[in-house]
Amino acid sequence: MLNPLQPLFTDDWSIDRDSGVPAYEQIAERLVDLIESRRLVIGDRLPAERDLATWVGVSRMTARAALGTLAQRGMLERDVGRGTFVSRAKIEHDLARFAGFTEMARREGLSPKARIRAINEVPAPDLVARSLQIAAGDPAYRIERLRLADDEPLTLEDSWVPVALFPGLLDHDLRGSLYALMRDVYLRPPVRAVERLEPTLADPHQAQALGVAPGAPLMLITRVAFGADETPVEFARDRHRGDRSRFVVEASTPIP
Amino acid sequence: MLNPLQPLFTDDWSIDRDSGVPAYEQIAERLVDLIESRRLVIGDRLPAERDLATWVGVSRMTARAALGTLAQRGMLERDVGRGTFVSRAKIEHDLARFAGFTEMARREGLSPKARIRAINEVPAPDLVARSLQIAAGDPAYRIERLRLADDEPLTLEDSWVPVALFPGLLDHDLRGSLYALMRDVYLRPPVRAVERLEPTLADPHQAQALGVAPGAPLMLITRVAFGADETPVEFARDRHRGDRSRFVVEASTPIP
Repeated sequence: MLNPLQPLFTDDWSIDRDSGVPAYEQIAERLVDLIESRRLVIGDRLPAERDLATWVGVSRMTARAALGTLAQRGMLERDVGRGTFVSRAKIEHDLARFAGFTEMARREGLSPKARIRAINEVPAPDLVARSLQIAAGDPAYRIERLRLADDEPLTLEDSWVPVALFPGLLDHDLRGSLYALMRDVYLRPPVRAVERLEPTLADPHQAQALGVAPGAPLMLITRVAFGADETPVEFARDRHRGDRSRFVVEASTPIP
Repeated sequence: MLNPLQPLFTDDWSIDRDSGVPAYEQIAERLVDLIESRRLVIGDRLPAERDLATWVGVSRMTARAALGTLAQRGMLERDVGRGTFVSRAKIEHDLARFAGFTEMARREGLSPKARIRAINEVPAPDLVARSLQIAAGDPAYRIERLRLADDEPLTLEDSWVPVALFPGLLDHDLRGSLYALMRDVYLRPPVRAVERLEPTLADPHQAQALGVAPGAPLMLITRVAFGADETPVEFARDRHRGDRSRFVVEASTPIP
């Protein structure tokens, strides 16, 4: 019986041996095309490595490398014993509209949750103090939380908040929106933020919390959030799972 | 003789054994603080693993893990036989001001260069065609270049351009700014772009081109650029070295 997926890899496509692009990368690109054009959809089972290898005329190792590349990027999920499947789409974060995790999750129709990993009052280290425009050693609350959407861990948050502006913050329920507390209890909502994005790798500690493999790609976002009077209200280092998150921005250039 | 760096790790700082944060992570954070507050500056040699371990009271393996974490993030550079040094700062890309590599590099005072890896005229695959708003299979130029700043490889660019809008593009010198060609030769400068950022890992092929280790963190930016009449002029997938690049954005929120 012909596998219904076979034509996708044999009929209107083939590997270009002269292009200089490695075969596994060409196969991975073909798979991306099939997924993004919805010819393969969420939950679809991919062909087995040996079938894919036979259809496109490569070694099984090459077929495995193509699937592995996309699994690493979060487009495919492997389920041992069952096969490889097309993953859910990544959650898109709009970088222009600044929002906390709670609001972001609600926008996406997901149910947000926070699991507290550590809350402490500590002297602000140099970098944190400079970012918050307080003196080094001034008291700061450090709030480390794991954020989940529909019970799936997505982000490790490490937030620093000046005690002077938010006295008693740790007495409140911190399993919800920190920004809502700032707004509703302290009347100091963050209204603006500067964010710096860097790709990084999950260390074993972070990997375990987020449910990914050590060395998996994470998006590290370092943020300073400001209140309406331009006072810094938060310094944060958030680590987002790269296999589940993507960040969108629109940029324009003045015509020169 | 007392090592002049020792006081930085013993006098006004020590590991907090009760915090639940692993020791290597606390040491790494201390190092970040010292670098970002300029008490350690570019080119400074870090203490040897065994000295650092002794000063802060951890195993040599823990000290190595702390240095390794920061080397991976690009803050430290290892030079076999010479030691570990504080790296140059990452290049900051402003996400709001859309610019090609050439303009970005010049802004940073760096000398831009392009090394061509492949240029081809090919039928546009599905995803590319949809992004460029042309029919699948319509001809597109695919331009793969390695971009360098001050002779250091920084970005792998994979750009797709519709042939219909830019006929003969490949006859021009593509070692400079593609956007300048679009503007000056075809009078179709890109004026706006939508970019999607994802952290990813360098595959062996990409790693070799960029001069990083396989599995090193990269920032994958998928971009669609538009001309003044809103016609898509480019679809691109750029991979930036994570140890040398950081992306900055300012976000605001309307007060609810």
